[in-house]
Amino acid sequence: MCFMKSSEIVEEIFRDHRSIRKYKSQEIEENVLNSILKSAARAASTGNMQLYSVVLTKDKERKDALSALHFRQSAIETAPVVLTFVADINRFSKWCEFREAGRAYDNFLWFLCSTIDTILMAENVVVAAESFGLGTCFLGTSLYTAKEISKLLKLPSGVVPITTLTLGYPAETPELTDRLSIDGFVHLEEYQDYDRAKIDEIFAEKEGLVQTKELLKENNLPNLAQIFTQKRYPLNDNIKISKEYIELLKEKGFLS
Amino acid sequence: MCFMKSSEIVEEIFRDHRSIRKYKSQEIEENVLNSILKSAARAASTGNMQLYSVVLTKDKERKDALSALHFRQSAIETAPVVLTFVADINRFSKWCEFREAGRAYDNFLWFLCSTIDTILMAENVVVAAESFGLGTCFLGTSLYTAKEISKLLKLPSGVVPITTLTLGYPAETPELTDRLSIDGFVHLEEYQDYDRAKIDEIFAEKEGLVQTKELLKENNLPNLAQIFTQKRYPLNDNIKISKEYIELLKEKGFLS
Repeated sequence: MCFMKSSEIVEEIFRDHRSIRKYKSQEIEENVLNSILKSAARAASTGNMQLYSVVLTKDKERKDALSALHFRQSAIETAPVVLTFVADINRFSKWCEFREAGRAYDNFLWFLCSTIDTILMAENVVVAAESFGLGTCFLGTSLYTAKEISKLLKLPSGVVPITTLTLGYPAETPELTDRLSIDGFVHLEEYQDYDRAKIDEIFAEKEGLVQTKELLKENNLPNLAQIFTQKRYPLNDNIKISKEYIELLKEKGFLS
Repeated sequence: MCFMKSSEIVEEIFRDHRSIRKYKSQEIEENVLNSILKSAARAASTGNMQLYSVVLTKDKERKDALSALHFRQSAIETAPVVLTFVADINRFSKWCEFREAGRAYDNFLWFLCSTIDTILMAENVVVAAESFGLGTCFLGTSLYTAKEISKLLKLPSGVVPITTLTLGYPAETPELTDRLSIDGFVHLEEYQDYDRAKIDEIFAEKEGLVQTKELLKENNLPNLAQIFTQKRYPLNDNIKISKEYIELLKEKGFLS
């Protein structure tokens, strides 16, 4: 129970947001999960077309197979529920086909629209889940192994993985992570490009963190930016994944 | 003030969500707008890189020029504040460059990651704004005129428009719009493709609406699907916009 305004409740939920990578074995109550999915679907979508689907993984063997495709990160290994969010023009296109309306959506514009719809809905799931005391973690690896995930989840033409969300009651309370201050990402009236002084200013907090110093020592690198480009997200991997994802988009009919 | 649980507050905010296309002239208080942007930025992002920027338009002349690029929809014509959400690898790449970390992000994978980051943040802005009693409307036309918007807002290399959100105090309370029931978009363990019977079932509500019947009469078309493919989103437009957006991605260095 609370004695706060709605805006204060939302602010508190957002402020307390952190990615949870270790969950209790406790199941999520079915009515809670259904309530989250139902109210999250109130999100806006392009033309109210809801161009997404959600594949819900609970079964142990299935989750194990899916976890392998996410490199067995602790978030998916320990979560009782995994939601794979997929961009989906298949359902809407089938409707059009059955109504003899012709095709319109098998192109890049609708890959973008369906991706946007998918993420609007996914973020609502995060907020709703956190309002119930649940924790979540997005798995960016959904893009890395999108082809294999598509096979495992039997995604048809017109459907591709965009992101994955692990869900469960938190078994950890990690520290809140840093964020850029508003003036680091908001531009008044037009984009103000960043010069060196501004970059130094807005990244100072991140670079000054104790964890950053530990990371640099561990990796024997001179600065955090090199941890990103050399360890976390090296160029060759990025190029390889980009090519594979574009191939998948062709295969699934998003680039005709 | 309330006497409800956080989950009930969030459920209520989501349930009451509607796109607002007419706003009062009342300004948005600066502290409210800042609070919304600050807490929305608590959203998860890829590697906590926050690969987005927000261009805030308030100035009358600027808003007029931007409105023209959104075909003068009433939402942007009447809103006191317009937020253009842009995928942004420029800021992070500049940081890497100034730290001699090399390049890593000028490829399609990072267009996807930055798009996801952008929309996660944008949806939080919607939820936070609604918690303050504000209304919002996403403008999908951001993709249609992305090149022109990029010029107007002076977006540099590594930055492209993804969506636009109008913001203001509502001057209308439109009826809530329909949504698919959960079993229309959730798939247990693997994707269950839709057959004709399932499509008929999940689209029945949408097809049965009074507004739908009025639309068909107005447009002299036999069903709603044809309104979508022939009137709202015709294939030739979609192909043209797709091509132009891919060109923009090349121009802005997202496909190297």
